[in-house]
Amino acid sequence: MRFTSDTSSSDGVCEQLFVLDPVLGVLWTPEGATGPRPLVLMGHGGGQHKKAPGIVARARRLAVECGFAVVAVDVPGHGDRPKDEEFDRLATENQARAEAGEELAPLIAGFQALVARRTVPEWRAVLDAVQRLEHVGTGPVGYWGVSLGCGLGVPFVAAEPRVRAAVLGLGGALASAEDAARITVPIEFLLQWDDERVPRAQGLALFDAFASAEKSLHANPGKHAEMPAFELDSTVRFFARHLS
Amino acid sequence: MRFTSDTSSSDGVCEQLFVLDPVLGVLWTPEGATGPRPLVLMGHGGGQHKKAPGIVARARRLAVECGFAVVAVDVPGHGDRPKDEEFDRLATENQARAEAGEELAPLIAGFQALVARRTVPEWRAVLDAVQRLEHVGTGPVGYWGVSLGCGLGVPFVAAEPRVRAAVLGLGGALASAEDAARITVPIEFLLQWDDERVPRAQGLALFDAFASAEKSLHANPGKHAEMPAFELDSTVRFFARHLS
Repeated sequence: MRFTSDTSSSDGVCEQLFVLDPVLGVLWTPEGATGPRPLVLMGHGGGQHKKAPGIVARARRLAVECGFAVVAVDVPGHGDRPKDEEFDRLATENQARAEAGEELAPLIAGFQALVARRTVPEWRAVLDAVQRLEHVGTGPVGYWGVSLGCGLGVPFVAAEPRVRAAVLGLGGALASAEDAARITVPIEFLLQWDDERVPRAQGLALFDAFASAEKSLHANPGKHAEMPAFELDSTVRFFARHLS
Repeated sequence: MRFTSDTSSSDGVCEQLFVLDPVLGVLWTPEGATGPRPLVLMGHGGGQHKKAPGIVARARRLAVECGFAVVAVDVPGHGDRPKDEEFDRLATENQARAEAGEELAPLIAGFQALVARRTVPEWRAVLDAVQRLEHVGTGPVGYWGVSLGCGLGVPFVAAEPRVRAAVLGLGGALASAEDAARITVPIEFLLQWDDERVPRAQGLALFDAFASAEKSLHANPGKHAEMPAFELDSTVRFFARHLS
């Protein structure tokens, strides 16, 4: 793991870009942090990247209000990573099939399953590396990810015993039910009631599939990208409750 | 309105029992309160009463943490109110029909609709009276009620323009969808995923029916009476956000 930027710092939060070949990532920690602390890994949405505004806003709040470390990485083919020919070809094919009237959900599900085969080992390696840093250490780990970050997050959380709590959402059972059934940690699951990408029944079925004794579905009106701002408050409290 | 108890006070909260014939109620306010403040009316569950432990716990937190006034009253035939022959006969009939294999939800729906014809005007009169008190005044009003408190709360919130936000839940569309469609204030709606009294689809359909632009469904695993304790934190924050 190699830091590629000087530590930049604003409003009490340090930001460090890093490479863990082939992964490009960013780590946020509270200014002046020393010693172990909870760590939250965040998965970004489709077409977004490790420093998308929503990711940065959540990371800053978790660092400032909870004293947590937060790490986010570019999914293959996203952000500062090179184009991925296989994923690009598949994405183009899927778009053509959707335009020809094919159902969107199964196409998304297939695509995410393929990408997850790459990201699950990458993200586990990132946890290994980041937890070796003195100002992060081996505290409890959380995961946050919606949409693509849910499709990739469910197999990651199922595979990674260090994750103790996760916020997931905007995903459906078609992609993720089998892995979800292996997850037993507390889950906060976000669903958009009028989601134009994930059919409501698919989202409800994914919530149903988690084996967790504590899981909480938060459903709000609006389309896929219209999640209300107050859910960020809830996310912060959820992680504070389970990781602090 | 006549107070029937001396003001008793503990841990910063004053409690006053009152009569507003035929209603018996209890009012909680922060110790030393003067001047207008937000007011939350709470409806208790079936077979419970105005001072059920869950009602008291919520009332104390809203008074201490938010400085709100909280009022709860006995539903006819409940708590310290005399038995109601009509409701008793109906409840006995319903129990027999349920034991004979009839579906529970329509029986509950019919019963609650009948009781609501009595409680809606009673609760509106309680608001009138309590808001005339110097230490309550005419601030914004909220409503909290689940189960029977939802069945009676939905028609109340639909009828009462002073209510600006409501926490409802453990109720189904069969009883309440028509009134719910007239509600436009922010709603937090609690649903138990394995509710043995309200079929899941009925609960989801009631959430769907609210006309509110801001409404948030919180669904958790467990049966009708197994709502997790952290939802109380969420209730307090919801009212603080909308009434403060």
